[in-house]
Amino acid sequence: MVTRSISIMLSGPSVADARAPRCQTTTARAALQPSMATATRRRCPAARVSGTFPGCDRARPSTPPDRALRSLHPLASGPLRRRTGSARSREGTMTETMQAVVWNPAARAYEATSAPVPEPGPEDILVRVAAAALNPVDGKMQGRIPADAPPRALGYDACGEVLAVGAAVGGFAPGDRVWYAGAADRPGSFATHQLVDHRLVARAPDGLEDADAAAIPLTAITAWEALFDRLGYAPLAEGGQSERLLLINGAGGVGSVALQLAKLSGIAATATASRAETRDWCARMGAAEVIDHAALPDLGDASFGRILCAHDTDRYFDTMARLVAPQGRIVSIVGTQEKHDLAPLFQKSASFGWEFMFTRPVQRTPDMARQGEILATVARLFDEGRLHPTRTATFEGLTVETIEAAQARLAEGRQIGKIAFLW
Amino acid sequence: MVTRSISIMLSGPSVADARAPRCQTTTARAALQPSMATATRRRCPAARVSGTFPGCDRARPSTPPDRALRSLHPLASGPLRRRTGSARSREGTMTETMQAVVWNPAARAYEATSAPVPEPGPEDILVRVAAAALNPVDGKMQGRIPADAPPRALGYDACGEVLAVGAAVGGFAPGDRVWYAGAADRPGSFATHQLVDHRLVARAPDGLEDADAAAIPLTAITAWEALFDRLGYAPLAEGGQSERLLLINGAGGVGSVALQLAKLSGIAATATASRAETRDWCARMGAAEVIDHAALPDLGDASFGRILCAHDTDRYFDTMARLVAPQGRIVSIVGTQEKHDLAPLFQKSASFGWEFMFTRPVQRTPDMARQGEILATVARLFDEGRLHPTRTATFEGLTVETIEAAQARLAEGRQIGKIAFLW
Repeated sequence: MVTRSISIMLSGPSVADARAPRCQTTTARAALQPSMATATRRRCPAARVSGTFPGCDRARPSTPPDRALRSLHPLASGPLRRRTGSARSREGTMTETMQAVVWNPAARAYEATSAPVPEPGPEDILVRVAAAALNPVDGKMQGRIPADAPPRALGYDACGEVLAVGAAVGGFAPGDRVWYAGAADRPGSFATHQLVDHRLVARAPDGLEDADAAAIPLTAITAWEALFDRLGYAPLAEGGQSERLLLINGAGGVGSVALQLAKLSGIAATATASRAETRDWCARMGAAEVIDHAALPDLGDASFGRILCAHDTDRYFDTMARLVAPQGRIVSIVGTQEKHDLAPLFQKSASFGWEFMFTRPVQRTPDMARQGEILATVARLFDEGRLHPTRTATFEGLTVETIEAAQARLAEGRQIGKIAFLW
Repeated sequence: MVTRSISIMLSGPSVADARAPRCQTTTARAALQPSMATATRRRCPAARVSGTFPGCDRARPSTPPDRALRSLHPLASGPLRRRTGSARSREGTMTETMQAVVWNPAARAYEATSAPVPEPGPEDILVRVAAAALNPVDGKMQGRIPADAPPRALGYDACGEVLAVGAAVGGFAPGDRVWYAGAADRPGSFATHQLVDHRLVARAPDGLEDADAAAIPLTAITAWEALFDRLGYAPLAEGGQSERLLLINGAGGVGSVALQLAKLSGIAATATASRAETRDWCARMGAAEVIDHAALPDLGDASFGRILCAHDTDRYFDTMARLVAPQGRIVSIVGTQEKHDLAPLFQKSASFGWEFMFTRPVQRTPDMARQGEILATVARLFDEGRLHPTRTATFEGLTVETIEAAQARLAEGRQIGKIAFLW
């Protein structure tokens, strides 16, 4: 088996798009978790984004809005939930051209473009993307694309409608509303149309609007794989699990889902968070305990059977090696730049490993369909009201500007939960 | 939980013992595996040991033997199997003094000594040691003992007879013949008498003589924990297991048991070995494939779902990172001196971890009784004829000289299987 490289591109002429970004910081699932609204309104994480931010005390942007703001309160979001663009056709009559925002590695910039709508391969589903979401991995992927590579659509999370299915696809049909995080080596979800292997896809939860749904797949698959496939917890186990979990950075996208899945699985999770808003958020997401990052050195050695790092592995490696219990496991989702001393783990028979959500789809592992199964289970948990959305902000329009604004917001390092885009 | 330090010592006056070592290189279970005899006779691994070596073309030692050599052929070993010294008493009448060979960290030397026979604690068994065995970890432990610490008995593997049991011990009684590897923080098995926590002990297999039995526990527990608790294979599974195993150094003590357990569990194992004798041995122990260490660079990337390193982790780390498959696991039993780059494992969601046999007993983990259970299962497999001994040499007498000679032999790096000592 050979590691596959990331090589499939979406190319086409660049079209400048001067629309200004619109961000709406919302209260995730306010009707179900009303106290969350208070927490996220305390300080708007979108401070440096140019745009209007309902609920935030920010200056009016220099560029006037060119689209109407939409209400994203779940009780008023009915019309949005199955919103699709003009290219949609339940009858399979597709427009010939799709829109996309591509990353141009030569220019080191995003560009709006158009391209022919692709035909599904045998295992593919063609989806009309209704909403996408931003993840830290988008920014990391930019840096991995060689400067001489053609422009390509990034973006992984999506919620949308099936337009067509490949010859070998079972279980999906045009008109199905689906969600997925896709594969990092194929054109992404920053586009009106996208091809995705059906084994990575599930039906989206009926109870979630598009923006909330789009914000879930990558983080849910990452959190699920980390907790259950890598750290060895039993998924959705009844009763308690004996190994305590330390989650470094509980309030990010992955942390927010991981804390909920941990609580549903009887896992006592200690989350780190350093601000009042993020500590409050972690507690609401299901943390048994929330501590400041700065308090880690004060914890006793060998305190945690399992550790999940969602923030700066280089910085926390030695601390984690000290805190992990005998026979314990450390898993991180954040890559390292430095070498590390594994010897402190020896006498504990402990391990360090990685969770990278694209391992299964990019390597085409024999069990890649597990990602579709995970998403189907997660969708059921949402529809049963056992999981709650983690989206806290939504940009109206998927444009060069909204992507850049959302990335700037993530780069601030103060984001709570997820940022979504609506086409 | 705090990592326990190794602090319990056996102290006493030093008594020089001038007996010369006697080594007998034997054919492991020749009656069951006659072709093994040929392999191990081709070249005697005891080349530098001072003593007589039946079957080896070596010069007569300068020091004359002071004990009769014993035949270790299994068909002639009946009288040896339950051989015990004069201190043994099935009625619980113990002699008051025990003999031991202790490591003196100040002198950096082994010394013969005597000490009062200890009383069992509530969870302890007092054992009259009939046979012990040498492992690479004995030499490593020497280096970890501070120079100002009192002398202590090393040695872990043992087969012997229960003389007395503690108040809380169930399942064992005086007269039982037992085997165990014990705990690294208590006085060891290089002694006529030893205390061991009963949760780490099982009845020895009836079909194995003392020297063969003593050579198994540490390697069997290590191999079992590595394959099943750390690498995640299913123990003794019917049918094949999908993840291929690479075992670096298949012919050592742990490798020899791991290959047998792998075969019994439907695991296709590729073992590395560089000499004709070791390659032959690995094949007999159950390797599906044997390759030279030097051939590792020629293997394709991501070839193995699981890798077990039993030789020089520093040297093989980068190679293992390249050879491990997506979602794969690497486990090593050999500690590192250098830092390592974990980044190559990231895109594979792979892990690196340790197996150290003394983690459970020294940390007193809640599941430490699993080591007794493993030994009970391994004993059953021997009595069913499904596992075969790995002892290839035995020293007559457990003395300063036999231990030093055996260690010199291990240090040569050419040892196949295990070395045992008979009291």
